[in-house]
Amino acid sequence: MDTNTIAQAIDARLPFAEAMFHDLEAQTCDDQGVTRPAWSPQDQYAADLVADTARSLALEVSYDPAGNVYATLPGIDRSAPGLLTGSHLDSVPKGGNYDGAAGVVAGLTALVSLKDLGVKPQYDITAVGLRGEESVWYGIAYLGSRLAVGALPTTELDQLCRGDTGRSLSDHMAELGCDVDALRRSTTPYISPANTRAYLELHIEQGPVLVSDNLPVAIPTTIRGNVRFPYARCLGAYEHSAAAPREHRQDAVLAVVELVAALEQFWLDQEAAGEPDTVLTVGKLFTDAAQHAMTKVPGECSFTLNVGGTTQTFLDAARSLIYERTRQIAAKRRVSFELGDCVGSDPTPLDANLRRWLSQSANDLGIAHREMATVGHDASIFARAGIPSAMVLIRNQHGSHNAQEAIEMADFRLGTQVLTSSLYQMSGI
Amino acid sequence: MDTNTIAQAIDARLPFAEAMFHDLEAQTCDDQGVTRPAWSPQDQYAADLVADTARSLALEVSYDPAGNVYATLPGIDRSAPGLLTGSHLDSVPKGGNYDGAAGVVAGLTALVSLKDLGVKPQYDITAVGLRGEESVWYGIAYLGSRLAVGALPTTELDQLCRGDTGRSLSDHMAELGCDVDALRRSTTPYISPANTRAYLELHIEQGPVLVSDNLPVAIPTTIRGNVRFPYARCLGAYEHSAAAPREHRQDAVLAVVELVAALEQFWLDQEAAGEPDTVLTVGKLFTDAAQHAMTKVPGECSFTLNVGGTTQTFLDAARSLIYERTRQIAAKRRVSFELGDCVGSDPTPLDANLRRWLSQSANDLGIAHREMATVGHDASIFARAGIPSAMVLIRNQHGSHNAQEAIEMADFRLGTQVLTSSLYQMSGI
Repeated sequence: MDTNTIAQAIDARLPFAEAMFHDLEAQTCDDQGVTRPAWSPQDQYAADLVADTARSLALEVSYDPAGNVYATLPGIDRSAPGLLTGSHLDSVPKGGNYDGAAGVVAGLTALVSLKDLGVKPQYDITAVGLRGEESVWYGIAYLGSRLAVGALPTTELDQLCRGDTGRSLSDHMAELGCDVDALRRSTTPYISPANTRAYLELHIEQGPVLVSDNLPVAIPTTIRGNVRFPYARCLGAYEHSAAAPREHRQDAVLAVVELVAALEQFWLDQEAAGEPDTVLTVGKLFTDAAQHAMTKVPGECSFTLNVGGTTQTFLDAARSLIYERTRQIAAKRRVSFELGDCVGSDPTPLDANLRRWLSQSANDLGIAHREMATVGHDASIFARAGIPSAMVLIRNQHGSHNAQEAIEMADFRLGTQVLTSSLYQMSGI
Repeated sequence: MDTNTIAQAIDARLPFAEAMFHDLEAQTCDDQGVTRPAWSPQDQYAADLVADTARSLALEVSYDPAGNVYATLPGIDRSAPGLLTGSHLDSVPKGGNYDGAAGVVAGLTALVSLKDLGVKPQYDITAVGLRGEESVWYGIAYLGSRLAVGALPTTELDQLCRGDTGRSLSDHMAELGCDVDALRRSTTPYISPANTRAYLELHIEQGPVLVSDNLPVAIPTTIRGNVRFPYARCLGAYEHSAAAPREHRQDAVLAVVELVAALEQFWLDQEAAGEPDTVLTVGKLFTDAAQHAMTKVPGECSFTLNVGGTTQTFLDAARSLIYERTRQIAAKRRVSFELGDCVGSDPTPLDANLRRWLSQSANDLGIAHREMATVGHDASIFARAGIPSAMVLIRNQHGSHNAQEAIEMADFRLGTQVLTSSLYQMSGI
């Protein structure tokens, strides 16, 4: 079957995809955007919509004990590892309708289109709707995919609490009918390389690159890793801004400014030396509102550091620089740094073979696309669990994690064509 | 009369000074430190204590229409311009007992000691307790001295409101029995070069220099001027910290960091080139707590700039640099700066002749001292009104404007000896 036939089948099912987006938005809208907390009535509505829709299309439906929902187009060899596609159903508070859900709807659209075409794949092809990807709810990202691959210690089920309700993850799960005891007892992950040969995730791009480049689709090379200091601060001494001469000062702001300027220079130097796709963000920087004044030398300055990159070498160098420069600056300026915990994740390269399938499909369909690094997604969890994983990003207006987030259905169509064509090519027919 | 005789008279009156400090502290203490708001029952208590004490010592007492209190040791020629000494009675919230009050108590101690010695000066010698020096109450500093010399437009009496009460200055004044109508009608300032030949102010040093130098006393050369931007901010754009590549970013924090680093370099360069007594303070620097996150490129950063110096050339160069660099940085980084109002004051040199009297007195008394620039004081208002003015600073522990502020009575003694000896020398005898 040629790619154009698949493309036409997708086109015929675009109203189906649009109807799912409308339904999700109508049922989970907030005063701005949508709110689908992880393990809430709202993302349960989304999961049940996936299940009900799949059943109505005569696809097989199951839930895993964590509440992730699966719709399967059965293959000829039911025991062979299958193909998995999908994304997450939860959103940030007052977020957009597409961050996550686009990949789930694309997965279902792929399955129903292949079914429309009478495709009988060699292996199962499954679309998954994952829970709890957004870190805002329980402080940790990718909870649903972590639970699916057995990468979350089960003690966390009782220890993680939702920030706004204060109630535990297990409590919220049980309330929605998840089998928490089964999760606790489970020794075999629901998803593993033994039953899954590949994971493909369609997701909206969360940055401005595709809009800027006027391209509908990207095929990411790597999920960036990062080195993060979420709770850093510098302590100096408060003094009268005019009465304290320079050599007496222990100025926390000037110390942090020196650190941040040095980090930016490191970033520019690395970029000039050819290190690809690096980022540096100081998202929070603040003197103490209870103490600060225009006329006081600042005695305290809090800040976050967030360095992203696609190579471990770069991230290690950034971490070393942060420790080294804070020591130097502290000695020179007679301040102290409390950097707090260093957290983050390793870079996760996406599977080269899968990327070639995706790129070939896009070429066959005549869909302009580019490569780029991308941000953290559930795909990184499947990749780290040993399942070859890759992604399709689609153009997105106004960034993500806000109510203005938007995609054009024309771009969703092209991304879903690339995804579906690749699933078809990889389905062993 | 030699200086040692005067020194002994001061020593005999130290218990008098100590008793006044204790009384002030007991009656105006807060849960930490003292709180004597400008034109409040607390600074009224201080003013009335000055008046009652002066009357009990048979000094002449008067209040001006603004509520500043004067105690006078009459001179032989009552019509000749007199000598004025003193400082302010108000404090910051939860401040120290000595910032301001030390100069008023020193003035009274000087007068009573000269009276004890039977000194009959050629000109009146007057100690003043001023009101409203601290800018924290009405947003403007030196209100009492400005009103005394006629340097505050009377429309401000109704326009200035106290930050914590929201009520106007005239309202607070009237409540304490000040003659606000007389102030409004007044065409002749209460204090002017016509009736005042010199103003000498003793004040605690508000920085760490004398402690560090192990000196009890300083004789300041200049009151620093400053260039201030109290409400500056930089506006960029919020974006996903990992999804937005460098060339797409409009990072408000990195823009402000570049500005502050450039200003610090300018400061160091000017200092190296011999510019004396310069300071730079970024006392407030903050991303927007309602918006900021470790994972967002910061779209907004607020800050204050406060540059101090003793020459107009330096301050003008600093102001120009701030405007020039913000233009450059805004263009380079695609952000915008809203610097807000530029406020500040010109440097005010203190009177060279008076400084020589003070220095000579210290030398005669064998009191080690140094010169240094100082911060804004009421002396700058008298100086700008054309009254030759100078100051004596005394060593102060733990900085000022906080409850830990402290002086040793041994240092108060030496400072008051220098002050009193100089007043005697200058009194035309």
